[in-house]
Amino acid sequence: MAKTIGSTTWAIAEGYIPSPGTGTSRALTSHETVCILNAGNSDTEVRITVYFADREPAGPYRFPMKARRTRHIQFNDLADPEAIPRETDFASVIEADVPIVVQHTRLDSRQPALALMSTIAFPGS
Amino acid sequence: MAKTIGSTTWAIAEGYIPSPGTGTSRALTSHETVCILNAGNSDTEVRITVYFADREPAGPYRFPMKARRTRHIQFNDLADPEAIPRETDFASVIEADVPIVVQHTRLDSRQPALALMSTIAFPGS
Amino acid sequence: MAKTIGSTTWAIAEGYIPSPGTGTSRALTSHETVCILNAGNSDTEVRITVYFADREPAGPYRFPMKARRTRHIQFNDLADPEAIPRETDFASVIEADVPIVVQHTRLDSRQPALALMSTIAFPGS
Amino acid sequence: MAKTIGSTTWAIAEGYIPSPGTGTSRALTSHETVCILNAGNSDTEVRITVYFADREPAGPYRFPMKARRTRHIQFNDLADPEAIPRETDFASVIEADVPIVVQHTRLDSRQPALALMSTIAFPGS
Repeated sequence: MAKTIGSTTWAIAEGYIPSPGTGTSRALTSHETVCILNAGNSDTEVRITVYFADREPAGPYRFPMKARRTRHIQFNDLADPEAIPRETDFASVIEADVPIVVQHTRLDSRQPALALMSTIAFPGS
Repeated sequence: MAKTIGSTTWAIAEGYIPSPGTGTSRALTSHETVCILNAGNSDTEVRITVYFADREPAGPYRFPMKARRTRHIQFNDLADPEAIPRETDFASVIEADVPIVVQHTRLDSRQPALALMSTIAFPGS
Repeated sequence: MAKTIGSTTWAIAEGYIPSPGTGTSRALTSHETVCILNAGNSDTEVRITVYFADREPAGPYRFPMKARRTRHIQFNDLADPEAIPRETDFASVIEADVPIVVQHTRLDSRQPALALMSTIAFPGS
Repeated sequence: MAKTIGSTTWAIAEGYIPSPGTGTSRALTSHETVCILNAGNSDTEVRITVYFADREPAGPYRFPMKARRTRHIQFNDLADPEAIPRETDFASVIEADVPIVVQHTRLDSRQPALALMSTIAFPGS
């Protein structure tokens, strides 16, 4: 059942945490998420570097990632070494020591109806 | 008219079945879908393995897939060997014995207006 | 200024024309669109084959495509050799004699607020 | 921390600037955005060429792009050599002298609830 699929480096050129919005729960609050799948048989560490328009990158943010598991990490929750500013353009590079698969999703609930977007990230070679 | 296009292994790192929402019909109820195209001339079997954050994977879920056909499978409907829990992060790997093409779509109708997202899945080599 | 970028074969595994919806103009009526860019210096013909769940494919639908031009074709408008049924799952393969780039977009206005989704199609080799 | 990831040529087959919509601020006004990440260590220039259905391409539009930075450029803001017409289908090719990563996002607020879509652009070889 365990697969080796993916790449060890991924990029997401779009990033933006909207204001909290109209959501009445964590699931419906505006958020920007990086979804990671480690379908292989080896545990790894995921490292996220965040790029901005007008300053040097932040991070890397480090997360343990077990074999045969998925993790959906919200940029809203990043805190160490620093929080990601709200309503600010950013981009990110995601790295691991084994192949992973990365997808980017945003839920925006600033207006009375939520909006969703999602795209596969760009795999490095 | 029949083409061989695609890959035999695909991954979708994002998965989440929202609560049923405001939809008044099956088409407008929140759902998470994997759309599969077998454009070639050979029938095949599609196998979906579902990955979670904190337990071993479920599946594989098995589906027959005819030549020159498309199937849009809702994760909501998966039942054997087990149902997919609602409001839970998951990811999936899709495999077949012949090249297929896989796309991921979600319709979310938790709030009074629906939201849509879609992305091509990630093809393995 | 003219570029050769793209592939001669593309697939879109997701296709669905929602009911017309709440839109009050053509731009706001629910539609399923295939966006094609021919950035090169040669005119070509685009051929679209449409796949279904339970019958043989329809098409090919043929469209002339000039050099250095884009065409955004609505599946709603396909008529020859046959119209695409509404509220029915389909998929498509897009071919040309020169490299093109293909993207898939849906606007859904069945509920009082529109929803959008878009993804790059899958390029054949 | 600096990575070389991406391609020097990218295409986006879908482009459309909706009417301004219901947004009450720049962040909530309908817009079409190309998000660019230059994760490498070299400054570059980004050139965007815009393709239409029925006329020769516009541009290139030129933007300086520093090393280890992201830029989110709105097609709404392009002015030199000419503005992009509203409510008109277009497509674009994005080039740089070093590898970059490109993603395409639209926020549509024509109806009382905004809609979002996003996809990775198509990388040239």
